[in-house]
Amino acid sequence: MNDFDLTIRGGRIVTASEDFVGDVGIKDGRIVAVASALPAGTRDIQAAGKLVMPGGIDSHAHVEQLSSMGIMCADTWYSATVSAAYGGNTTIIPFAAQHRGQSLMQIARDYEKRAAPQAVIDYSYHLIMTDPTPEALNEHFPVLVREGITSFKVFMTYEKMKLNDKQLLDVFAVAAREGALPMVHAENDDVISWIARKLIDAGYTAPKYHAVAHDVFAEDEATNRAAQLSRVLEVPVLIVHVSSAGGARVIHGAKTMGASVHGETCPQYLVLTADDIDLPGTEGAKFCCSPPPRDPASQQAMWESLASGNIALFSSDHAPYRYDVTGKLPHGDDTTFKQISNGLPGLETRMPILFSEGVKKGRITLNQFVALTSTNHAKMYGLYPRKGTIAPGADADIAIWDADKHVTVTADMLHDNVGYTPYEGHHITGWPETVISRGDVIIDNGMLHAEAGRGWKIARGTPEPVVNAKEPSERASFLRKLFSQHK
Amino acid sequence: MNDFDLTIRGGRIVTASEDFVGDVGIKDGRIVAVASALPAGTRDIQAAGKLVMPGGIDSHAHVEQLSSMGIMCADTWYSATVSAAYGGNTTIIPFAAQHRGQSLMQIARDYEKRAAPQAVIDYSYHLIMTDPTPEALNEHFPVLVREGITSFKVFMTYEKMKLNDKQLLDVFAVAAREGALPMVHAENDDVISWIARKLIDAGYTAPKYHAVAHDVFAEDEATNRAAQLSRVLEVPVLIVHVSSAGGARVIHGAKTMGASVHGETCPQYLVLTADDIDLPGTEGAKFCCSPPPRDPASQQAMWESLASGNIALFSSDHAPYRYDVTGKLPHGDDTTFKQISNGLPGLETRMPILFSEGVKKGRITLNQFVALTSTNHAKMYGLYPRKGTIAPGADADIAIWDADKHVTVTADMLHDNVGYTPYEGHHITGWPETVISRGDVIIDNGMLHAEAGRGWKIARGTPEPVVNAKEPSERASFLRKLFSQHK
Amino acid sequence: MNDFDLTIRGGRIVTASEDFVGDVGIKDGRIVAVASALPAGTRDIQAAGKLVMPGGIDSHAHVEQLSSMGIMCADTWYSATVSAAYGGNTTIIPFAAQHRGQSLMQIARDYEKRAAPQAVIDYSYHLIMTDPTPEALNEHFPVLVREGITSFKVFMTYEKMKLNDKQLLDVFAVAAREGALPMVHAENDDVISWIARKLIDAGYTAPKYHAVAHDVFAEDEATNRAAQLSRVLEVPVLIVHVSSAGGARVIHGAKTMGASVHGETCPQYLVLTADDIDLPGTEGAKFCCSPPPRDPASQQAMWESLASGNIALFSSDHAPYRYDVTGKLPHGDDTTFKQISNGLPGLETRMPILFSEGVKKGRITLNQFVALTSTNHAKMYGLYPRKGTIAPGADADIAIWDADKHVTVTADMLHDNVGYTPYEGHHITGWPETVISRGDVIIDNGMLHAEAGRGWKIARGTPEPVVNAKEPSERASFLRKLFSQHK
Amino acid sequence: MNDFDLTIRGGRIVTASEDFVGDVGIKDGRIVAVASALPAGTRDIQAAGKLVMPGGIDSHAHVEQLSSMGIMCADTWYSATVSAAYGGNTTIIPFAAQHRGQSLMQIARDYEKRAAPQAVIDYSYHLIMTDPTPEALNEHFPVLVREGITSFKVFMTYEKMKLNDKQLLDVFAVAAREGALPMVHAENDDVISWIARKLIDAGYTAPKYHAVAHDVFAEDEATNRAAQLSRVLEVPVLIVHVSSAGGARVIHGAKTMGASVHGETCPQYLVLTADDIDLPGTEGAKFCCSPPPRDPASQQAMWESLASGNIALFSSDHAPYRYDVTGKLPHGDDTTFKQISNGLPGLETRMPILFSEGVKKGRITLNQFVALTSTNHAKMYGLYPRKGTIAPGADADIAIWDADKHVTVTADMLHDNVGYTPYEGHHITGWPETVISRGDVIIDNGMLHAEAGRGWKIARGTPEPVVNAKEPSERASFLRKLFSQHK
Repeated sequence: MNDFDLTIRGGRIVTASEDFVGDVGIKDGRIVAVASALPAGTRDIQAAGKLVMPGGIDSHAHVEQLSSMGIMCADTWYSATVSAAYGGNTTIIPFAAQHRGQSLMQIARDYEKRAAPQAVIDYSYHLIMTDPTPEALNEHFPVLVREGITSFKVFMTYEKMKLNDKQLLDVFAVAAREGALPMVHAENDDVISWIARKLIDAGYTAPKYHAVAHDVFAEDEATNRAAQLSRVLEVPVLIVHVSSAGGARVIHGAKTMGASVHGETCPQYLVLTADDIDLPGTEGAKFCCSPPPRDPASQQAMWESLASGNIALFSSDHAPYRYDVTGKLPHGDDTTFKQISNGLPGLETRMPILFSEGVKKGRITLNQFVALTSTNHAKMYGLYPRKGTIAPGADADIAIWDADKHVTVTADMLHDNVGYTPYEGHHITGWPETVISRGDVIIDNGMLHAEAGRGWKIARGTPEPVVNAKEPSERASFLRKLFSQHK
Repeated sequence: MNDFDLTIRGGRIVTASEDFVGDVGIKDGRIVAVASALPAGTRDIQAAGKLVMPGGIDSHAHVEQLSSMGIMCADTWYSATVSAAYGGNTTIIPFAAQHRGQSLMQIARDYEKRAAPQAVIDYSYHLIMTDPTPEALNEHFPVLVREGITSFKVFMTYEKMKLNDKQLLDVFAVAAREGALPMVHAENDDVISWIARKLIDAGYTAPKYHAVAHDVFAEDEATNRAAQLSRVLEVPVLIVHVSSAGGARVIHGAKTMGASVHGETCPQYLVLTADDIDLPGTEGAKFCCSPPPRDPASQQAMWESLASGNIALFSSDHAPYRYDVTGKLPHGDDTTFKQISNGLPGLETRMPILFSEGVKKGRITLNQFVALTSTNHAKMYGLYPRKGTIAPGADADIAIWDADKHVTVTADMLHDNVGYTPYEGHHITGWPETVISRGDVIIDNGMLHAEAGRGWKIARGTPEPVVNAKEPSERASFLRKLFSQHK
Repeated sequence: MNDFDLTIRGGRIVTASEDFVGDVGIKDGRIVAVASALPAGTRDIQAAGKLVMPGGIDSHAHVEQLSSMGIMCADTWYSATVSAAYGGNTTIIPFAAQHRGQSLMQIARDYEKRAAPQAVIDYSYHLIMTDPTPEALNEHFPVLVREGITSFKVFMTYEKMKLNDKQLLDVFAVAAREGALPMVHAENDDVISWIARKLIDAGYTAPKYHAVAHDVFAEDEATNRAAQLSRVLEVPVLIVHVSSAGGARVIHGAKTMGASVHGETCPQYLVLTADDIDLPGTEGAKFCCSPPPRDPASQQAMWESLASGNIALFSSDHAPYRYDVTGKLPHGDDTTFKQISNGLPGLETRMPILFSEGVKKGRITLNQFVALTSTNHAKMYGLYPRKGTIAPGADADIAIWDADKHVTVTADMLHDNVGYTPYEGHHITGWPETVISRGDVIIDNGMLHAEAGRGWKIARGTPEPVVNAKEPSERASFLRKLFSQHK
Repeated sequence: MNDFDLTIRGGRIVTASEDFVGDVGIKDGRIVAVASALPAGTRDIQAAGKLVMPGGIDSHAHVEQLSSMGIMCADTWYSATVSAAYGGNTTIIPFAAQHRGQSLMQIARDYEKRAAPQAVIDYSYHLIMTDPTPEALNEHFPVLVREGITSFKVFMTYEKMKLNDKQLLDVFAVAAREGALPMVHAENDDVISWIARKLIDAGYTAPKYHAVAHDVFAEDEATNRAAQLSRVLEVPVLIVHVSSAGGARVIHGAKTMGASVHGETCPQYLVLTADDIDLPGTEGAKFCCSPPPRDPASQQAMWESLASGNIALFSSDHAPYRYDVTGKLPHGDDTTFKQISNGLPGLETRMPILFSEGVKKGRITLNQFVALTSTNHAKMYGLYPRKGTIAPGADADIAIWDADKHVTVTADMLHDNVGYTPYEGHHITGWPETVISRGDVIIDNGMLHAEAGRGWKIARGTPEPVVNAKEPSERASFLRKLFSQHK
C-alpha cells in the first residue's frame, strides 16, 4: 500500500451511490484503494475542492462510420477519442455498422483495425445489424458476443438500414440465445417517409421540415412496437435516443407490466427544440438529427424520466458531420431536408450540459449524474465493475471536475473534427479538468497527454438486464426453443 | 292514425335508452307511432310479456366473399340473411372484398349484384381494401362513399390482404377527406407468420397451434399501431374483433388521450377460449378464427369493456366455412393450421349469446344489449336514425323476444349453410320469436315469410365518429392538406 | 288516438338517444304517442324548426332551506319552481335538511308542507342527514325511502353538518340496506378550516381567500375517501359538484376498479374561475361557492368528463342568497370570507349555459345534453321512465327550445328572488321557449301559466346504480350482515 | 496505511451500487480504506467466499416503549440491540413515544436515558407525536431536530394515538419548517373501529377478526389521505409498513404526480398472510399486527414495489410482545382481538428473510438488498454517509454473511425477549456470521462480544427527501408562510 503509481488526494469522491472526501490510490492502471488518506504515490494530484468522479462512458457515438447515404463521419477514432476525453470520458462505445450485403465479421474486424492504432481512451463497439443473414446471426454474431461485443443496434427506420418486424424477432431471438442486448432506433419508417415524400413534392424542403417528417407519433408507435416485439420473446431491449413524452410513457408502461424495456436520451432532447432548426437557408441542418429536438413539454418529460430513473442512460449520439458538402449538406445549398446527414456532434459537451442543466439546477443529484453518464452505461453494456465506478479493482478511469467553472461553449474550444457545435454560445457551469484513463493522466490543464493507440478495446460481459432477466414464461420458452430448432 | 298496416301491442319496448310498455304502429314499412295504446292495425301482434327491441344489426359478417385462400364462403346472401333474420337481425353489413389487382368499383358492383336478388333483410356492405391504388382511392372510393358505402376495412395481417403502414396512412387520409370510417383488423402479420413458419417447420401443425401463432402481443402491438397511425392524421378509427386485455387497454388509453379510437368484439371472445381448439385431429379447426379465442382473463376484459362502453360494438364476424374440403379444411386431414380457413359462423347465435350471458347474468343491462347489438352499429356506420331504434320515422325493423325461452344450441336448428356451430350444446336463455323488417313479419312461429330479394340496400350516411370529430390540430391539418395536394 | 289534449307538431324530438322529426301526443298529462304525424289535439303547438326535448331535471338545488349559519334561502318553493320552469326545467329535487338535534321525519314533513302549496312544477327532495341517530336511520329513513325519497346527501365539511367517517359508514350501510343512493359533498373539512383559521388570523379576509381555503387537495382527498369508504361496503355513491381534475380522476379510477362511483358537476365549474372572486370589497362574495370555481385546466377536465360520460350529472347547485345582510353577507361589509353564505343561483341559467357552451361549441352532442340535464338525473334518482324522456307512458314534461336565440344574461330577466346572477353579461345561444309540465303549457311566450301548488310531489323508485349494483363480495356481504345485526 | 486496527480480507464487498472483491481497512472505528489488498491490521478477518456488506439499519422497531394499552415491550434496549446485532444490524432507530399529556422533551430525555447504558449497537430514535401541542411543536421539537432527531411518526389510527387531519397538517407544516421527515401509520381509524365494534358485539372475537377489522380499504384510504395532506404543503412524507396493492399504487401515483411520497414494507407482508392468523384459540395472536398480513396478491405487489424501487425501505416493525398476559394477551384467554397487543418481533430475522426470499429467489439483486436494508434507511433518515455504506469515512459497521448457510428458524435460536417467532420453522438460506460495529467485532462465531452501553446515539442530519425537495409552489409557499406566522 505504499507504492501507488498515482494518488488523487482530498477530493470529493462521487459514485452512483457514494459521496465522500478521500483519496484514491492507483497502481498498474487500476484503482487499488480508496481511503480517507493514502500515502503519496509516484505522482500525486491534489483534488481538494474538486469532484472526483468515474470517467464518463459515452455508449452512443458514431466514429469513422459510413452512413447509409455514403457519408463518412468527420471524426476519426483519434479525434473522437480526444474530444471525448476532453469532455470527461474515459470510454466510448461507437458502432461497427454492417451495411446490407456486408459480412458482419468483416465489418467488425475492419472496424477494430481502424480503432486500435488511433484510440486514446478505452473503447468497445456495438454492432449495427442491417442484414441479419443466417451467417451473420449464427456464425458471426456468436463469435463476436463471445469476444465481448455483447450489444447491437437495429433500426426501424432509414431505407437502407431498417429491419422489418420479422427480422426484429429474429435478432431478438438471437439476442436471447446469445445473451446480448438489442438497442433499437425506434421510429416508424413508413410514417416518416410518407410525410417526407409529400413535403418534398410540395416544395417544403427546408431543414425545418425534417422535424415535421419525423412526426412524434412515428416515435411513439415504433417505441411501443419494439417493446411489444421484445415481449413476444421476453427479451430485454433498450430504446435509444428517446425524445418524446409518448416514448417515455411506453417505457414506463412496459416496466409496469413487468417487461425489461430500457431507455436512453441525449442532450439535444433536453436543451434544444424543433424551433432551433428553423433558421434561414440550410443553417438549420446543424440541428437536424433523428428523432429531432421537439418541444418544451418533451424536454420536461425527459427530465422527469431522468430524475425518476425511467430512462437510465444519457448519451451523446455523437454523429459528426461538418456543415458542408462532405457532411451535413452533400448537395450544398441544393440539399433538401431528406438529404441532410442526420446527427449532431456532442461527445465533448454531453457531460457538461447534464452537469450544468441537471445537477446545478437541482433537477438531478450528483449521484444520478454519475449513474446517468457512467455507471448505468457500464452496467447496461457489461463493462461493470471494471468501468463505471471508483472502487478497488476497477480501472482507474476518473475525471476530476471543477464544479464551478464557467464556460461559454464555442466550436473553437472543442476537439472534434466537426467545425460547429449546436450548443454554440450556451453557458455552462462545471467542466472536467483532469482526466485519467487506466491510471494515465491524459488530460491536464487543458493539455492532452496521450498517444494515439493507447486506448484498449475492452471485452464486455453480459449486460445487466440479461443477467437480471426473469425466467421466461412457458409461452416465451416454447417460442425461443422453436426458434433455436429452426434452421 | 287509424290505418296502421301493423301494430305491435302491449310489449315491453326497449331501445338503447328507453324502456316502457306500449304499442308500436307501423305503416308503409316505417314506425309511425309509439304509444301507450294504438288502434288495431290491419294486422296486430300481441306482445304482452315480450321484449320489443330494435332488430339487430350485424355489422361484421362475411357473405359470398372469396377468401384470400380462394375459398368461397358457404353462405349465400340468401342463406346468410335468412340465418341472420332467425337470429333477430334486420340488417347486416358484410364486406365487398377487393383482392389485389381488382377494381374496387367492379368488386362493389359485382357484390351488389349478388346481394340484390337474394337478401331477405336490408343490408349495406363495407369495402375491403387490399389494393389502395390511386384509382381505387381517388376515383372509385369517393363515388362509393357518395352512394352510401361510408366505411371500409383494411388488414394488417394476411399475406395477400395486408396493407403496410404507408398504405394505412393513405387510406386514413382518404377516409378523412371523404368522411368515411376505417375499420382495422389489427394483428401484426410479421409476428404471426414468424411464429407460424417455425411451428410448421417443427411439425406443430395441429389446429391448436393457430392460437400459438396468433400471439396476443401481435394483437396488442397492431392495435396500438393502428391507433397511433390514426393519430398522425387525427382520423377516427375502429378496431374490429378486439380479443385481448391489451387491445382493450390501447383503445381506452387512446380515448383518454383524446383520440377517436373505437372497438368491436364478438361472441367467440366472450364464451370460448384457446382450449376449445385443442381437440383430436382437425376437429379444432371448428374454433379457429383470427384473433383466436384466448383465455378467461381476456373474456373478463371484454365483458368489462362492454359494460363500461369502452367497446361499443358487438358483432358476429360470421365467416361461414363448412368443416370439410370446401371450407375449413381445403386439404382435408392434411390441412395444417395455416391452411385452415379462418372464422366462425355466428349470425344467428350472436344476439342470443349476448342476451343469455350478458343480460340474464347481470353483466350488462337491457339498454346496453340494444346499444351493443343494434343502435351503436347504426350510429357507427351511418344508418341512424333510420335503423337501430324504435322511434317514429325509423324503419320498422323490430325483433320480439321471449326473454325466458330456453334453447340448447345445435347446428341442426340453425339456418346457415355451415353445418356446424362452435356453440353446439350451449344453453341459452332468451331468443327472438318474431322478426319484422320494414313492417313485414318475416319470422314468426319459427317460419320464414320472406322472399329472396325483398331486402334493400341501404345508402348509409356519415358515421357518427366522423360527424363528432374534433377540429384537427394545426399539425394534422397541415398533413391532411399536404396529402390532398399530393398526386 | 284522436283525442289528444295537446299535440306538439313537427319539432325535432331529441332524447338521450333519439333524434327525429315528429309529433308528440299528450293526454291526461302523459305522453301517449310519439309519431311521424298525429291528428290535432285539443290544443296544438307548432314546433317546426324547434327542439323538443325532455324538460330539465335539476337534482341539486336549495330551496327554502335554512343554512347551517341560520340563513334562509332567498327562494321560496314558488319563486324557485317558477325560475326553474323559465329555465326549461319540469322537475327539481331540492333538499330537506336535517340539522343536528332535529327529527328527520319532522323535517321531511315540514318541508313537504312548504312545497305542496307553492310548487309550480313537479318535485321530490333528497334528505340531508347531519344527525344519523338510530331513530333517523332505523325508523324515519326506511319510511321515507318507502315513500319515494330514495336519495340523501351527507357532508364531509361544514362544522355543523359534517359526518365523520364512522357516520359515513353507518349511512352507507343503511343506504345498502334500504336501497337508497348516498350523495356526498366531498371536501376535507380539516384542510379547509386549518387554512381558513390561519388566513383569518393573518387578516386575509377578502372573499377571494375563500378559494384559497378550499384548497383543491381538500376536494381530491375527500373524493377519494368517500369512494374508498363506499368500497368498504360496496355501496354505490354519488359525488356531487365535482370541480377538480383530481376529483374526476378519482371517479374514473374507482370505476376502472369496478366500483359504482358517480359524479356531478355544475355550470360554475365550466365557465367561472377563482379569478372571478377577486373583486373589490365584498363583491367577490357573489362568486363564492363550495367547492369554489377553480382554473381553466379544471374547467377542461370537467368538459372532458362530461363528454366521456365519466361525470353523468349536470346540476345547478342553486343556492340562492341575496347579495346583502339577509343572504351572502350576514355582517354586511364586515363579513369575512368564512361568513359568506356559500352558493350561487343557477336554476334558470343551468341548461342554457350547457347548451350554449357545450352543444353549440361542439363539446357535447344534443343527445348528451339531454342525458346530462334530464335523463341521467331521472335514472340516477329513480324517476325514470316517468321523467327524463319523451316516450309513451312518460309524464308530458317537455321543453321546446329555440336553438338559435341569442340572450345576454342579466339578473333582471331571471325569475328567482336572488337579485344578481354570477353570469351577468354572459352571451348565450339557445333558450327554452315553451315549457310543458304534465301536459300543461306552463311557460309560453315568456309568460307563466301556472298556479302555485300545481306541482306534484313524485314518489321516486330505486336509483339505477342500486338496481344495477353487482352482487357484493363475500367480504362486503359479511360486513353488511354484521351491520344489520348490530343494534 | 499500515496500522489498521482491523482488516477484512478478500471478501465480496457489496454496497448499494458496488460489488467487488477486496479488503476493508478499519481504524478508530471508521473505514479508512477499501482496497484490492491491504496490509494486515492489528486484527484480520478472512472473508474469502463471504459477502461483506454494510451492517443493517432497522429503522422501524419498538423498544422499551409503552403501548397505548399500557403494555411495555418485552425487549429492553439491551436485548433488542443484541438481537438486532445477531440479525446483522449495526444501527436501529426505535421510537420515543409521547403519549397524550406528556412532554415531548421529557419523553425524549427519558428514552435516551434508558438507551444509553444498554445499547450494544448504535442507535437513534424517531419521535412519536400523539400530542402536538404548541410546546411540543415550537419548543421541544426544534431542539430535538437540532440534536439530530430528524424524523417523527404520527398515527392515523389507535384511539389514544391518532391525530386528526388538522393535526397532521400542523405537524407537516412543522416538518417543513424544521427540515424533518414525517412518518405515517396510515390506516383509517374510523373504518377499523366501526368494523371492530360490530364484530365484537356479534361475538366475533377470535384473533382472525383482527384482519377483518383492519380492512384493506382502511389502509388504501389513509395512505391516499396522508399523501394528499402532504401535498397541501408539499412536504415529503413516508408511509410506514405498506401492506396492500392499493397502498403501493397510491405511492406510485403520487410520485408520478411529482409528490415526494415514500414507502416502507416489512417481512410480514412478504411471507405471511391473514390465513396465518386463523389458528385455534388465541394462538393467532402471534400473527396480529397492523396492518395485518394480507393475501398472496398483496405479497406480490410488495415484491414488485421492492424490485422497482417504488418502496425504498424494508424494516422489521419489531414490536416485541410475549405470548402471555404481559404482552400479546393482557386478559389471557379472555382477550378479544381488540385487546391483542399489536405487532410482531422481527429484528433478528428481517435481513435473513429478505436475503433468502428476495436475493436467493431472484426477486431482487444483492445491491438492492443492501439498499433496502441499509443504505436507503441511512439516506432517508439522515445517517448517510456515516452509516449505510462501505466507503472511506463511514463508520465501520459491517456484516459478513455466509450466503449459503441454511437455517431453520426457531424461537430458541433468537436473542430477543419475546419467546416466540412468527417465522417458526421457516427455512432460510443466508445468514450473517460476523458483525462489526464501529470497528468492534461484536458478533463472531455465534458469540456476542459487546458490553451494554457500547452503542452510541447518532445525531442524524437532514433526511435526503428534504434535501432533494423541489422548490415549493407559490400556493404551498403561501400556506407555509401563513402557518409560520400563526401563533
